Amino acid sequence: DWLNAYRQGGNPQNLLTGLLNQLINSEQVDGNIRYGSSWISLADATNLQQQLDELQQRLQQNQGDLSALPLYGVPCAIKDNINVMGFNTTAACPEYSFAPQQDAFAVSLLRRAGAIIIGKTNLDQFATGLVGTRSPYGAVKNPFNADYISGGSSSGSAVALASGQVAFALGTDTAGSGRVPAGFNHIVGLKATPGAISCRGVIPACRSLDCVSVFALNNADAGYIYQLLAVYDEQDEYSRVRPPVAENPIRTLGIPATSEWFGDEQQQLAYNKACAQARAAGYRLTEIDFTPFFQLAELLYQGPWVAERYAAVGEFLLQSLPGINDTVKKIITAGCDGSAVDAFKAEYQRQQLVRKIEQQFSQVDALFVPTTPLFPTLKQVEDAPVEVNSQLGRYTNFVNLANLSAIALPAQRRMDELPFGITVIAPAWHELALSQFAAHWQAQLQLPLAPLVNGQQQQDSVVVAVVG
Amino acid sequence: DWLNAYRQGGNPQNLLTGLLNQLINSEQVDGNIRYGSSWISLADATNLQQQLDELQQRLQQNQGDLSALPLYGVPCAIKDNINVMGFNTTAACPEYSFAPQQDAFAVSLLRRAGAIIIGKTNLDQFATGLVGTRSPYGAVKNPFNADYISGGSSSGSAVALASGQVAFALGTDTAGSGRVPAGFNHIVGLKATPGAISCRGVIPACRSLDCVSVFALNNADAGYIYQLLAVYDEQDEYSRVRPPVAENPIRTLGIPATSEWFGDEQQQLAYNKACAQARAAGYRLTEIDFTPFFQLAELLYQGPWVAERYAAVGEFLLQSLPGINDTVKKIITAGCDGSAVDAFKAEYQRQQLVRKIEQQFSQVDALFVPTTPLFPTLKQVEDAPVEVNSQLGRYTNFVNLANLSAIALPAQRRMDELPFGITVIAPAWHELALSQFAAHWQAQLQLPLAPLVNGQQQQDSVVVAVVG
Repeated sequence: DWLNAYRQGGNPQNLLTGLLNQLINSEQVDGNIRYGSSWISLADATNLQQQLDELQQRLQQNQGDLSALPLYGVPCAIKDNINVMGFNTTAACPEYSFAPQQDAFAVSLLRRAGAIIIGKTNLDQFATGLVGTRSPYGAVKNPFNADYISGGSSSGSAVALASGQVAFALGTDTAGSGRVPAGFNHIVGLKATPGAISCRGVIPACRSLDCVSVFALNNADAGYIYQLLAVYDEQDEYSRVRPPVAENPIRTLGIPATSEWFGDEQQQLAYNKACAQARAAGYRLTEIDFTPFFQLAELLYQGPWVAERYAAVGEFLLQSLPGINDTVKKIITAGCDGSAVDAFKAEYQRQQLVRKIEQQFSQVDALFVPTTPLFPTLKQVEDAPVEVNSQLGRYTNFVNLANLSAIALPAQRRMDELPFGITVIAPAWHELALSQFAAHWQAQLQLPLAPLVNGQQQQDSVVVAVVG
Repeated sequence: DWLNAYRQGGNPQNLLTGLLNQLINSEQVDGNIRYGSSWISLADATNLQQQLDELQQRLQQNQGDLSALPLYGVPCAIKDNINVMGFNTTAACPEYSFAPQQDAFAVSLLRRAGAIIIGKTNLDQFATGLVGTRSPYGAVKNPFNADYISGGSSSGSAVALASGQVAFALGTDTAGSGRVPAGFNHIVGLKATPGAISCRGVIPACRSLDCVSVFALNNADAGYIYQLLAVYDEQDEYSRVRPPVAENPIRTLGIPATSEWFGDEQQQLAYNKACAQARAAGYRLTEIDFTPFFQLAELLYQGPWVAERYAAVGEFLLQSLPGINDTVKKIITAGCDGSAVDAFKAEYQRQQLVRKIEQQFSQVDALFVPTTPLFPTLKQVEDAPVEVNSQLGRYTNFVNLANLSAIALPAQRRMDELPFGITVIAPAWHELALSQFAAHWQAQLQLPLAPLVNGQQQQDSVVVAVVG
């Protein structure tokens, strides 16, 4: 891993310059990033040098003590709706592009820990979508099978990591954007309790629900990055101090009493196998009624929360600009229709459903669900872009509305070799309990948790993981 | 007090029948309740007998153990937007009247404790107002000086208690309705943390902000009733379990660095005296910037929350009915205009202001404010009904939006003999700290905390207090 490489005398200057040159070779065509890349922008030589210089300064300030820089020289990718000084923020819309004057709060914490930001990643425009195809920079290719979607909206961050281009990546997650692409790319996606990680410096999707999420190759890395980022930010009004919650260890898992696979039998088989593996690992699986979860999931898309997207970027999208994605425009501009009366009525419904959900969590410690109920092809999404998108959100949409924490984890691949992922969902502030489950799950399944390079899962690589 | 009277052999049947006959004599004219009374309905003989029979049954179920019925035979008044079986609920609109099939949750707790509901009290229609004049049943008369308003919206509950007609009363409080009338009637008004007392069975004003409030003659009674009512209600989606909060004892009080008295010098003088008394009692008073509080107060009236009132009763108010109050109709029906986008934008502003308010509470334990900055006459309200109303809410409107707890307390009367009240405002779940402050305040000021009967403050009376 990266830290070991440095401890053994590796030099960030050489290793990271090499990495960037590799990326430029693989991702750029004629000096421009290729269509459908994970990346929207890559650090140029000046940008990288500046980061490396700052890193050396930080090290000197710490008298050369590497332990004060826990991410010393570790390369990461940042979703392009999160501000990073030295890179334009596009939110996957070229005409929206601007040069931020400040790092997002989460990014500043990564820099302070020594991380190097390699570039900004592609996404469903304005983080509106779970598909990874709604971008004028091209649909991000799934590294396991290019006929299938990579998932979104944090598609680029997930694929850059899954392809071994960085050691970890940041995404965002409002309706599942930090979990769905984890499931489709065989990586870990940690979406902590809303407010645990500051969203200051993130282009809002639904500001009252947005989360910064962490992608990593394994649970230990995800937990490590999370702990660095979970810092209360007085200047973000949705940032929250962790209350004195006693976390319940996860023993009993709620699974849906009835499920709908939208014709994807492979996904169903993979989930059944995962359930059997969870039972074999000693967990008690209990069928519970998912009706309140599904109703809350529907409320997110049919209710007033799209007005939050309109409040953020609606007026910008009213313009006629070639870089605006039609589907995204249609969804968000419809958000100006609702009335305040309807917004409050939906909020009452939400509170009622949240109450029912709390009652469900008195029976189980966590939910154990497929990250998505289907793994669609690019073609399927093209044919029904809105419908397939909402099918994808079945097990993710309700999570932030209900103030829950969740981790998406790789499970055993499907019989057709596509990745399959499960998600464990717990009450607020249960990140440690989720991490303990994930560690146990990983140990039981013994899956290869290394990136794909040229279509081959690596067993060992310098670009593997943060924590050895 | 009532409980002592029963312990000394008094009989609820005789005492309460006597009380009701007195009330019927004083409040009814030709068989109808007089215009401007505190009451909209009084228990008739059948209703009272039924309550007394049930009380005897409860006592028998408890083998005659009076300690199991802590409010045994204690007469109380309930604001007429709170459902009580056996009484119609009008919300001060005769055409809205209906016979509830169930007690409000809070009322059922009072009955279980042995309380007797004497009647339902007058209010600003649909709890929309802080004046006590917006009712087709007449403006409730202030017992200290009939030229002045009694305050609202829980006007009838406050005046019935202040006049010695009951031992305690329930009101509701969205923007100050449980505090303003306490201030104008020399009684205690406890508005606990939103969600502490269930609002199931209450006609909503702003459902996300509404609180049931307690009026009592002294702090001990208010605290006692509060403890009986602060029961988590699974069926009210806004009911909350008290989190494990460590209450800060109140030592440092924040007072406004600048204040506005709308021409009411008497009120200003009384507040200055109250501040001096608080200092003399050992509290440290610190001037703080009230801008975020005032901005949040303005947001309540100018922002989207009026859409909640529309969601509750807006369609009803679109009708042309003689019993509908014009001012109330105008305010609430305007609530359908706002968009969901504006509602979310206001919610973001609220979150920002709440963050600033949290920062203010890191400097002080509580706020110490005049309950209202002015004590207007009926005439002044008539001349500018909306303007004076919003002036009244200056120190009350922001409290529920910021999720705070508050207690309105009698202070020394003004030089013109009108009551003057102060309010202490603390973070959520600080009811015990508020009660400790209030006990100390009462002990220091040695005010007469007995009701007015025929214009005279009583020193002793059977109708005084619950707790001896």
